[in-house]
Amino acid sequence: MASRVIQVAEQDDDILEKCKGFMSLPVTDVQVLQEKKGEMCTRMELLIMETQAEFCRALEKVDGGKFKTDRWQRKEGGGGISCVIQDSNVFEKAGVSVSVVFGHLTEEAAKQMKSRGKVLKGKDGKLPFCAMGISSVIHPKNPHVPTVHFNYRYFEIEEEDGSKQWWFGGGTDLTPTYLNEEDAFLFHNTLKEACDKHHPQYYPDFKKWCDRYFYVRHRGETRGIGGIFFDDLDSPSQEEAFGFIRSCTSTVVPCYVPLVYKHRDDAFTAEEKRWQQLRRGRYVEFNLVYDRGVKFGLATPGSRIESILMSLPLTAKWEYTHEPEEGSREAEMLEVLRTPREWL
Amino acid sequence: MASRVIQVAEQDDDILEKCKGFMSLPVTDVQVLQEKKGEMCTRMELLIMETQAEFCRALEKVDGGKFKTDRWQRKEGGGGISCVIQDSNVFEKAGVSVSVVFGHLTEEAAKQMKSRGKVLKGKDGKLPFCAMGISSVIHPKNPHVPTVHFNYRYFEIEEEDGSKQWWFGGGTDLTPTYLNEEDAFLFHNTLKEACDKHHPQYYPDFKKWCDRYFYVRHRGETRGIGGIFFDDLDSPSQEEAFGFIRSCTSTVVPCYVPLVYKHRDDAFTAEEKRWQQLRRGRYVEFNLVYDRGVKFGLATPGSRIESILMSLPLTAKWEYTHEPEEGSREAEMLEVLRTPREWL
Repeated sequence: MASRVIQVAEQDDDILEKCKGFMSLPVTDVQVLQEKKGEMCTRMELLIMETQAEFCRALEKVDGGKFKTDRWQRKEGGGGISCVIQDSNVFEKAGVSVSVVFGHLTEEAAKQMKSRGKVLKGKDGKLPFCAMGISSVIHPKNPHVPTVHFNYRYFEIEEEDGSKQWWFGGGTDLTPTYLNEEDAFLFHNTLKEACDKHHPQYYPDFKKWCDRYFYVRHRGETRGIGGIFFDDLDSPSQEEAFGFIRSCTSTVVPCYVPLVYKHRDDAFTAEEKRWQQLRRGRYVEFNLVYDRGVKFGLATPGSRIESILMSLPLTAKWEYTHEPEEGSREAEMLEVLRTPREWL
Repeated sequence: MASRVIQVAEQDDDILEKCKGFMSLPVTDVQVLQEKKGEMCTRMELLIMETQAEFCRALEKVDGGKFKTDRWQRKEGGGGISCVIQDSNVFEKAGVSVSVVFGHLTEEAAKQMKSRGKVLKGKDGKLPFCAMGISSVIHPKNPHVPTVHFNYRYFEIEEEDGSKQWWFGGGTDLTPTYLNEEDAFLFHNTLKEACDKHHPQYYPDFKKWCDRYFYVRHRGETRGIGGIFFDDLDSPSQEEAFGFIRSCTSTVVPCYVPLVYKHRDDAFTAEEKRWQQLRRGRYVEFNLVYDRGVKFGLATPGSRIESILMSLPLTAKWEYTHEPEEGSREAEMLEVLRTPREWL
C-alpha cells in the first residue's frame, strides 16, 4: 500500500509540474485531472495544453514578441484558452486556441457532430458529451512565409447503456502565397513520417481528404497546398488512435517553424504583398463559407465568437476580376491550387 | 392603321434611344425587347438598366473616375452587366451590377426562390423562369462617407397550366462607420416618402424586415442602420407593384449621393480609418455567412462569382477582441447596431 501511495503522489506532481509549463492552467481543475488521470479526456487535455505551449514558445522565439493569453468560460460547461499575437515582428496574426467543453447533446446534435452521422441513443434523448481540441492559424507578415493551420480534436459521447462512443479528428495544412517546392516537400514529408509510424495508408488517404476538404468550390481552387485531414478516427484502438494524434501534434513545430526561419527575412515587393492580401481574401472565403468548425461554432449559442474567428487574417483584400499574368509566379501558385499535386 | 404603325415605330425608337444612355446594351437583344415591349420582363429590364446608368453617372460625377463595364453571358441563358470602379478618388470599391437570367427550374428550386416557399407545379416537374435584378454596394474611402447597398429584383415562373407566378423583391440599406443622425434621417426619410406613395404600411413593415434581415446573429448586431427590405411582393397588382419598384429605384441617387458630397472631404484620423476597416470585416461576415443572394449565387453552378462577390470591400480587417472605448464614437455606433432605432 505504501508504495502505491508514493507512486500516486509522484504522478500528481507530474501533472502539476507539467501545468507549470503551459500557457495557462488547463480548463479542467488540476485536482479533477489528477483524479481522472487515466481517462482519455484527461490525457487529451494535457496533450493539447502541451502542444499549445510548445508551439507558442517556438513562435515567440522566432518572432521576438509575446502571446496574449485569454482564458474564457462557457456557461454551459467548460471553456478555453486562446493565445494570440497580433501585428508583431514576424506575424501579422497568430492564434493558438484550446477548448474543452462538456454537457449534454440531443440525439440530433450528436448525429451532426460525426461526419459519418452515426445514430446514437441517449437517456431521454440526451447524451452526456465531452469535446476538446486545439486549433491554430498563423498568418505571417512576409508573403514568402506560408500560412499554416492545424486542428486536433477528441469527442466522447455516453450512450443510454453507459457505453462510450469516442473519436479523434484533425489535420495540418499549409497555405503559401507563392509556391516553394522545397517547402512543400519538407512540410508534407514531416507529416508523412508521422503518419507512417501508424499506418501506411494514413498519409495517402488523409492527404487526399485534405485536398477535398479545403476545396473552395465557388473558386474551383483549394485553399492551399494541403497536408493531412481526417475525422471519425476510432480505430484500431483508442490507445493507438491517441498515439497517432500524439505523433501529429508533435509535428506542428518541425513541419512549420523551420519555414518561418527560412523566409522571415526574405525581401518582398509591394506587388507580392498585394498578392498575399488577395490570397488572404480567399482564406476568409473558405473559412466563412465552408469550414465545418466555423459554421458549427457560429451556429452554436454561447460559443466564443472571437476564438472561432481568430483564424481570420488581420488584413485581407478583394479586387474585382484580378487575374495574374500568364507565366508569373502568381499564376504558378494558382495552377497548383486548381490542380492539387503529389509532393513526395 | 397608319397611325398605329407610326406609334409603334416611335416606341421602337424610344427603346433604342433609351439604350444609348445605358452603360452597355441591355442583356436581352434590343429587337426582342421591342417585340415584347409590353411585358413585365422587358419593362423591368429597361428599368434596371436605366437605374444602373443613372446611379453610375451620379457616382462618376462625385468621384471624378470612370466605371469599368463588363458584359458577361450565362451559358444556360441570359447574362449580366457589371460596372465597377476600384481604388478611385472617393470610392474604394463601387459595384453596380445588372443580371437577367432565364431557363428552367425544378419544382424544388422554384420553391426555394420564394422566401415563403410556395409550391409550384411545372410541366414534367420543370418550370420556365426569368429572374432579373440590379444589385449595388458602394464602399467609399473616407470613413465618414457611409457604405450603401441596394438590390431590386423580379421573378417570373410559368406553371404547368401556362399561368405566370411573379413577384418583386428588394431594398436599400445604409452602413455608416460612424453614426450621423442627420444622415440617417435623410436616408430613411427619402425611402419613407417613396414608400408612402404606395402604402402607409410599406415603410414601417419593410424597415423592420430590413433590421431583421441584416442581422449578424453571431455578433448580436445589425450590419448597418437599415433602410427597407422586402420580398415576395405580388400585390395589389403587377402594375402597382412595379410602380412601387420604380419609386424605390428612383430614390437610390437622392438617398445616397448627397451624403457622399457632404462627407467626401471630411478630415479623418488613422484611428477612424482602422475602425472603418474593422466594420468592413463585419460586412464581409454578413455577406459570406448570411446573405441569401450570395449563398444562392455561390451554390449555383455557372453563376459569375466575380459579380456576386463584387459586394466585398477592397480591404477589410479582423483584430482579435477589439472593443471600442466606453463613451467613444465607435461605442456609440456599436450601440445603435445592437439596438436598432427608429429614425423618423
